[in-house]
Amino acid sequence: MFYHVQRLINPIVVDEPDPAAANALQEGLGGQFGEMRTMMQFLFQSFNFRGDGIPYLDLIQGIGIEEISHVELITKTISQLLDGAPGYNGDKFDTPGKGGEATLDVGKLAKNPHHFIVGAQGALPVDAAGNPWSGSYVHNHGNLVLDLMDNLVLEATGRVQKSRIYQMSENKTLRATIAFLIVRDEAHQMAFAKALETLGIDWAKALPIPKFDSSQYPEVKKLLDAGIHREQYHFRLDSSLMEQIFSGGAPANDGTELITKKEPEESYPIPVAPERPEEFAPGLDPELQSMADALNEFKEKTLKNMEKKAGPNPRKKKSK
Amino acid sequence: MFYHVQRLINPIVVDEPDPAAANALQEGLGGQFGEMRTMMQFLFQSFNFRGDGIPYLDLIQGIGIEEISHVELITKTISQLLDGAPGYNGDKFDTPGKGGEATLDVGKLAKNPHHFIVGAQGALPVDAAGNPWSGSYVHNHGNLVLDLMDNLVLEATGRVQKSRIYQMSENKTLRATIAFLIVRDEAHQMAFAKALETLGIDWAKALPIPKFDSSQYPEVKKLLDAGIHREQYHFRLDSSLMEQIFSGGAPANDGTELITKKEPEESYPIPVAPERPEEFAPGLDPELQSMADALNEFKEKTLKNMEKKAGPNPRKKKSK
Amino acid sequence: MFYHVQRLINPIVVDEPDPAAANALQEGLGGQFGEMRTMMQFLFQSFNFRGDGIPYLDLIQGIGIEEISHVELITKTISQLLDGAPGYNGDKFDTPGKGGEATLDVGKLAKNPHHFIVGAQGALPVDAAGNPWSGSYVHNHGNLVLDLMDNLVLEATGRVQKSRIYQMSENKTLRATIAFLIVRDEAHQMAFAKALETLGIDWAKALPIPKFDSSQYPEVKKLLDAGIHREQYHFRLDSSLMEQIFSGGAPANDGTELITKKEPEESYPIPVAPERPEEFAPGLDPELQSMADALNEFKEKTLKNMEKKAGPNPRKKKSK
Amino acid sequence: MFYHVQRLINPIVVDEPDPAAANALQEGLGGQFGEMRTMMQFLFQSFNFRGDGIPYLDLIQGIGIEEISHVELITKTISQLLDGAPGYNGDKFDTPGKGGEATLDVGKLAKNPHHFIVGAQGALPVDAAGNPWSGSYVHNHGNLVLDLMDNLVLEATGRVQKSRIYQMSENKTLRATIAFLIVRDEAHQMAFAKALETLGIDWAKALPIPKFDSSQYPEVKKLLDAGIHREQYHFRLDSSLMEQIFSGGAPANDGTELITKKEPEESYPIPVAPERPEEFAPGLDPELQSMADALNEFKEKTLKNMEKKAGPNPRKKKSK
Amino acid sequence: MFYHVQRLINPIVVDEPDPAAANALQEGLGGQFGEMRTMMQFLFQSFNFRGDGIPYLDLIQGIGIEEISHVELITKTISQLLDGAPGYNGDKFDTPGKGGEATLDVGKLAKNPHHFIVGAQGALPVDAAGNPWSGSYVHNHGNLVLDLMDNLVLEATGRVQKSRIYQMSENKTLRATIAFLIVRDEAHQMAFAKALETLGIDWAKALPIPKFDSSQYPEVKKLLDAGIHREQYHFRLDSSLMEQIFSGGAPANDGTELITKKEPEESYPIPVAPERPEEFAPGLDPELQSMADALNEFKEKTLKNMEKKAGPNPRKKKSK
Amino acid sequence: MFYHVQRLINPIVVDEPDPAAANALQEGLGGQFGEMRTMMQFLFQSFNFRGDGIPYLDLIQGIGIEEISHVELITKTISQLLDGAPGYNGDKFDTPGKGGEATLDVGKLAKNPHHFIVGAQGALPVDAAGNPWSGSYVHNHGNLVLDLMDNLVLEATGRVQKSRIYQMSENKTLRATIAFLIVRDEAHQMAFAKALETLGIDWAKALPIPKFDSSQYPEVKKLLDAGIHREQYHFRLDSSLMEQIFSGGAPANDGTELITKKEPEESYPIPVAPERPEEFAPGLDPELQSMADALNEFKEKTLKNMEKKAGPNPRKKKSK
Repeated sequence: MFYHVQRLINPIVVDEPDPAAANALQEGLGGQFGEMRTMMQFLFQSFNFRGDGIPYLDLIQGIGIEEISHVELITKTISQLLDGAPGYNGDKFDTPGKGGEATLDVGKLAKNPHHFIVGAQGALPVDAAGNPWSGSYVHNHGNLVLDLMDNLVLEATGRVQKSRIYQMSENKTLRATIAFLIVRDEAHQMAFAKALETLGIDWAKALPIPKFDSSQYPEVKKLLDAGIHREQYHFRLDSSLMEQIFSGGAPANDGTELITKKEPEESYPIPVAPERPEEFAPGLDPELQSMADALNEFKEKTLKNMEKKAGPNPRKKKSK
Repeated sequence: MFYHVQRLINPIVVDEPDPAAANALQEGLGGQFGEMRTMMQFLFQSFNFRGDGIPYLDLIQGIGIEEISHVELITKTISQLLDGAPGYNGDKFDTPGKGGEATLDVGKLAKNPHHFIVGAQGALPVDAAGNPWSGSYVHNHGNLVLDLMDNLVLEATGRVQKSRIYQMSENKTLRATIAFLIVRDEAHQMAFAKALETLGIDWAKALPIPKFDSSQYPEVKKLLDAGIHREQYHFRLDSSLMEQIFSGGAPANDGTELITKKEPEESYPIPVAPERPEEFAPGLDPELQSMADALNEFKEKTLKNMEKKAGPNPRKKKSK
Repeated sequence: MFYHVQRLINPIVVDEPDPAAANALQEGLGGQFGEMRTMMQFLFQSFNFRGDGIPYLDLIQGIGIEEISHVELITKTISQLLDGAPGYNGDKFDTPGKGGEATLDVGKLAKNPHHFIVGAQGALPVDAAGNPWSGSYVHNHGNLVLDLMDNLVLEATGRVQKSRIYQMSENKTLRATIAFLIVRDEAHQMAFAKALETLGIDWAKALPIPKFDSSQYPEVKKLLDAGIHREQYHFRLDSSLMEQIFSGGAPANDGTELITKKEPEESYPIPVAPERPEEFAPGLDPELQSMADALNEFKEKTLKNMEKKAGPNPRKKKSK
Repeated sequence: MFYHVQRLINPIVVDEPDPAAANALQEGLGGQFGEMRTMMQFLFQSFNFRGDGIPYLDLIQGIGIEEISHVELITKTISQLLDGAPGYNGDKFDTPGKGGEATLDVGKLAKNPHHFIVGAQGALPVDAAGNPWSGSYVHNHGNLVLDLMDNLVLEATGRVQKSRIYQMSENKTLRATIAFLIVRDEAHQMAFAKALETLGIDWAKALPIPKFDSSQYPEVKKLLDAGIHREQYHFRLDSSLMEQIFSGGAPANDGTELITKKEPEESYPIPVAPERPEEFAPGLDPELQSMADALNEFKEKTLKNMEKKAGPNPRKKKSK
Repeated sequence: MFYHVQRLINPIVVDEPDPAAANALQEGLGGQFGEMRTMMQFLFQSFNFRGDGIPYLDLIQGIGIEEISHVELITKTISQLLDGAPGYNGDKFDTPGKGGEATLDVGKLAKNPHHFIVGAQGALPVDAAGNPWSGSYVHNHGNLVLDLMDNLVLEATGRVQKSRIYQMSENKTLRATIAFLIVRDEAHQMAFAKALETLGIDWAKALPIPKFDSSQYPEVKKLLDAGIHREQYHFRLDSSLMEQIFSGGAPANDGTELITKKEPEESYPIPVAPERPEEFAPGLDPELQSMADALNEFKEKTLKNMEKKAGPNPRKKKSK
Repeated sequence: MFYHVQRLINPIVVDEPDPAAANALQEGLGGQFGEMRTMMQFLFQSFNFRGDGIPYLDLIQGIGIEEISHVELITKTISQLLDGAPGYNGDKFDTPGKGGEATLDVGKLAKNPHHFIVGAQGALPVDAAGNPWSGSYVHNHGNLVLDLMDNLVLEATGRVQKSRIYQMSENKTLRATIAFLIVRDEAHQMAFAKALETLGIDWAKALPIPKFDSSQYPEVKKLLDAGIHREQYHFRLDSSLMEQIFSGGAPANDGTELITKKEPEESYPIPVAPERPEEFAPGLDPELQSMADALNEFKEKTLKNMEKKAGPNPRKKKSK
């Protein structure tokens, strides 16, 4: 059974909107090796798990739970990158078709026009080429050694693709999220490789994949320095045997040690996404809005609390 | 950010294996209107949510969190229904191809042979016709009224299809799970219909869809009597404004009242799925098994604890 | 712009329900070479048509219009074949889950369980293997010679597949419809082959494909005797130049002549499909039904008229 | 059974070609909520209709017939927008690869290169992201209340997406067609909402979706002034009970009245699409062309008649 | 550049037809981990190969070439298993629809009816659930370590699935082919594991996957005894550096040695598939047949030669 | 059984990289009418071939073998066109994310970002709109006349689309390959048309499709002058009866003669693709590289030999 807190696993950094960067990032969300796949693959493997190797189950499932929070993080990031257009001055996008103007013309030329026609400037469950996510991506072979190796290949591919995406844009919103995912994919590689080490395999100098000095990416370096690439969280409210596997020397064989924790040291506020009248999102007219407002006498107070936690949201814009 | 307890939202009831029933149930998991869709649709809508209508956000997201636990429940149910074959005596399936026998011949004739070739007698992210789940199923229009109506149609279709599936098998494993989902789909219809009521719509006698006396299904009746169809849980470890919407008279207009809770009153143990040597699942040979065993000095104790909570598992079978 | 009369292009013959036969017939509806493809391919070719070869346009479009009526015919046929189960005695299917019985258990074992879970015993836009119809089936190359040859291959494949389906069941409902389509596919082969003859190609003895004596199928023979395989209709309320092509000797080079008509000599009543309470179809409970009834003071009279035209419907059953 | 007149339901307005606008418009044709879906969904629902609620059947089917004419209209519009390139002067595109020039280089950079490689500058059965239309889009649940609500959500989504597309381009060819479809989607919302009103639901101020003043789009305003958003046509050559539902006050609760008609007051000529030698469309060389010409002694006269009705076609260009 | 000899890499063993076994075998041809995937994945990796690691290129490509011959072998095997029906006596299937009989009724009930409607009792590029093969199955990451690990997972999954399929039928036609593929998948695991050994990884006792005594399958044992599981062929007419990797101790660490050869020691005749009049395959009527016969004065002699090599074909049947 | 030589069927001509041209060329590789389809369609037809018409079998299969070499050729061409970016100076792309620069930013804007995120600047099994290749493209009807006509339509469509692609770019790398494929598609049209001639059909002046003077493309003219459009190769190491069909007057009826050969007169070196550090391809770090180097004492010598054959590779770049 699953629970939630309305917090992010990594902060969203503010920068200019960049629909093309958002589209590249879709590969990390809805691509064949993206977060929707890792989340679903690890959850299916743990729900269908056979036998009494509970530490292996707890390892796979714990990472699967983290992946739901990655889906949350990357979705919010894409949504923020799509919100408006580069150089957007706050006027053009507001009023649908004001005076016959094509206020959404950027959408016609977007890498994936669905971001503007279908998704109201929000993330979609598709990859960077616009293909919808498919259940056929989920691999659950039932054989433990094979599932662990498949998971290692999956996390390695995730890290390769995300390292390439890092190099596709200097946008700070994109880079903050992608750097975090590069580092977490490395931690997950360590997890599955360590599980295979318990069954005898010695990885020598092959890991992580790809082999390169990722600390040359400044955003990555900061996270490596904090040791995020050698931690794993189990996110279990009861208890977990993950640590039986995820401890001791890292399979990168670089002298580092693996550390199991319940959850990350810190969590981060979720920015409120502004209304987008030009997308009819959420699209309540004054009549409907007043009904929605009447519903909740505590709302003002609540919102104040949320903003206090999240800090000011510079691009937020209240509808009239 | 998401958390987990290793417990189920509804108990798995033991009965004979029934691969055809398992296949019908796949529609409820990976079908166009199944639990993977509801989970992803509500999570995407809440991650992409625009504006300050936090009670609506908390309602949609809270139901989305519950749907992850539904995916967990239905996956375990399908897995149990696939485990072996009807009338299975415990011998035939054990040894892969023993003496040239076709020990897995039931799989060749299964409604979806993938359950035996690909999935090791476990659930798959596909529908009852074998089509993989698609990201195109997820609807997130951005417009609040439209998203709420789409969600209502989704939950109504879920309830129609599950009521049909109920009538396709007398297997108690299938019926316990499907009855629970019929009742929860009714609660979710109430939730989205109530949200639309706050915007002025009056449903008169149209709900729930389908209109019929579902208490004629004994497993459903028990849950209705317990009021499960008028409760909604928010599963939030911090706090939620869901109750601002989900309270007061139910949109079925039958005199019942809606009640918001943090979580269900009870949770249930997760049965350990037995090893399946004929599927090479998990497929550790004695050499690898001894390494896995050496890993964990606390395992025996842990397993005892888990079984104590879960009760005896009648079909469990330890590999030698 | 399109118009409609509520009549069928060929009669539905009554026989026992046969879900497996219905499933085979799905290939003729939603298969890669089925009626949805021919309809869409010919309509797209005519909507995108370039140049002033109006007789070619009128030929392609006229056949495309006929194909919509074929989709109508085959959908009604599948729906009738699915309606209940072989040997169905009228009781079991009526009441959803009465007394805990699995009233719809036949659906669990159906070739495509979607016919019972999703489609309420009605036709689906899928093929005989359960794959949904795809827009990629539509070929519209823009080059006239190529489009005509592609259309000829399409109609030839349709006739091959339908001749195979004819041999898969002795059910009279299936055979009446499939025999009609075999004959019409032959007429359409003549149409596209004749258009290519106007550009110089001589077909010698190659047509129709497949070359065999289809008059050995008694239902086909009757239609051949009536000359249905050498007629083409343009279904145009204004006028058409189709006859400039579709006239003179048939490209089968068997001494027959091609005849263009506005529409078939006869049309046939559309049987009313009975309610299916076990499918919640249409699923109005007494309260909703009385509102629906109140709506229309002329209904009784109208229905009487329709039944008079359609003849008695032996399997129709009013809900209480 | 279906019939046709070679006329359009709304006029094609002439403006510059704009391949990116054409691509956005593809969402309205082959998208998950586009005209191919509405056409197929309503036709399947009416062909599979169960029970004696004939007015509901006639309403659904009548709208379905209109949707075929919408597919015709939007296909012609896309085809016109793709015809050549912005600023096209009539020379570059003519001769395939003349003197080694890349005469079709615009196609390499088109949003969807298939428009130039596959479709000969014509419309395709795909969405704005290039995904082919899928039969899985068609929802036909069998339950009347559910089907009506699904149809309402479908038409509401159509109107949302088309309002967004309107704002993506100032091209008059696009806007004339999209404005017409916005207005018709509103009429269809009224139709399905009214059918649900007959079963008791009161929509208050929720409709139409999205709630905004669409008369700020000048092309829409003209159609609203003419009352096109409150008319529905049944397109039946025999007779229809649609009016039993589609009459009285509109469910928008804005004081307007619904009016059922057989067909729109006016219809419009279909422009002849010019030959495109660079696409080999239709690609008859002089030898083949002379055979095609010989076929038809009435052609000149016929073409003259057609052009007289359609008015001069400014971009038409005869091949030599 | 590629070449061919009309010989098989393993013999087809004759047994009864078994359409359900044929369908299971489709997973090995068109499944996500079947031979079409291995063939395409290894060919794409070698065509896109970067850098000067020629021995790695030659290894990957050599295995890719072998996979084309596997596609050939498994296609012929499926075709043979589909040819007719169990207990088929040679009469029923001959004459299409003779006297109104449903001569192909077995096809209506086949696991995948496409085998009879679409494929003329031949293999299809689909998996055991009827899903068409997809280009998205092909993984070509560009990173050498990752590609080698992905290939290892692919071959391991192939061996797991084929070992399961072996146990699904006692049919000798299926088992001869599947046993050969189990053994070759083991050889390919050795190849990719050995390539990773050259980069430092030590597999200890983890390989092959799955770990079980496959010599308990008699057909497998025969091939193991012949050493087929430790050989790899490069199929290069010029020369290959494969042996630089594929030599020395096997990564199974069981004391066996790897041996590189140009090609297998033996090859086997390809049985001629009989005509199937009931499928119109090849469907030449006497008129067309006589033209085909006239074409080739050497045919009789050639066929005699081929049959001499292939041995008598017990189920072959000449059409009249 | 299949064999290989490490040579190309046509030379790769060096020109600037052009990712948009590469993307257009994808249609010729992974499109519905591209080389993967022709390869698979002809191989499936020959593996499933029924009856004793061996010359027809040898014709279809021989062309199928050639198509594998076309897949090889077009994959290498796309790979070369993607290698870097237009105007690439050799520095920017080298070092992943050097100093925070977005070294791969071109990939974010590429027509298909997968070429840079997924494919490491290599070809993908997808079409020009990014859709993965599908097994449903393969047509194998079993009926000989129909299969031959389907193949003719396939080759004609291939030639139409490639002629359009030719006109989309003046890049010499693209044009050299596309011109060769235009000419070979014409030869293949001749092959299937000739096979149909043996069954009586007379093509008059309809072929090839499209009818236009392709010698106006200079690269095509050179190949026509060499007669490449009237040759067919059987690529059989044993022997083939292809010549029984492919000889005599060409079905274009232009006075030319058809000639069957074992293989093309010449073959061409395969350029070594340079390492791409920014793509981690192949991504061996110095440690792993030294192990790879140690593997093979003959490598230097071998590489020298290969380069001698292939000529200098102007854009090749050794990693440090």
